[in-house]
Amino acid sequence: MAFQLDPRLAADTVSVTQRGAIDIRMMRDARYHWLVLVPQIDNAVEWFDLPDVAARALFTTAQESAQRLQALTRADKMNIAAFGNMVAQLHVHVIARHKDDAAWPAPVWGVGDAVDFDAAGLKDRLIALRGIL
Amino acid sequence: MAFQLDPRLAADTVSVTQRGAIDIRMMRDARYHWLVLVPQIDNAVEWFDLPDVAARALFTTAQESAQRLQALTRADKMNIAAFGNMVAQLHVHVIARHKDDAAWPAPVWGVGDAVDFDAAGLKDRLIALRGIL
Repeated sequence: MAFQLDPRLAADTVSVTQRGAIDIRMMRDARYHWLVLVPQIDNAVEWFDLPDVAARALFTTAQESAQRLQALTRADKMNIAAFGNMVAQLHVHVIARHKDDAAWPAPVWGVGDAVDFDAAGLKDRLIALRGIL
Repeated sequence: MAFQLDPRLAADTVSVTQRGAIDIRMMRDARYHWLVLVPQIDNAVEWFDLPDVAARALFTTAQESAQRLQALTRADKMNIAAFGNMVAQLHVHVIARHKDDAAWPAPVWGVGDAVDFDAAGLKDRLIALRGIL
């Protein structure tokens, strides 16, 4: 059976592009530039449980995505995190943070409600991200 | 001049052991098993700004630490994160999470106040961590 994206990740994010076996997605939250990297490996939960090649590929993709997203957004700081407390399926957050954003300097989770894009805004964001990733 | 640990990291954490140029520290918060990895490289802020060898060493050390800490604590989930919104000096959090811990399922930041160890508790914790790291 093909890899199945977790339903909550499917609802909260949209796919930007694919890098090898990693689905690079973005959070449906216009307050941030927020990527979510999902290695398409069945039953992956902890990063260190991945085969070495896949673990390193996820690391490299997180690093490159963070660097490019910082350049695009002129972010003050990049945040990279793997939690999985709510959604067990392995996924890595790469978030561009600005000193005037909705949560600064706290982590973004649990601060206010996500602001979804309108159709034009989503299209623009995807064009911008696909241009760098 | 020798590497200088950020004063806030120095106040909030204590060194467990050294792995190459990475200082493996633990948070002074008895509510969690919470490591903080600090690569001793001057002016390091973003993970992707490190030289490749140092960036990979930090990744490998984070992975190994997470794996060993999970085995020690039988954690339900390991959390790995690099933020740096408050303390710019590059550091990576490796936190063992349990479904009955003080913040679950939220990230640990901003939930209640840290509970410092007493002298005996700190000593015991360090012995346990040095046994696995």
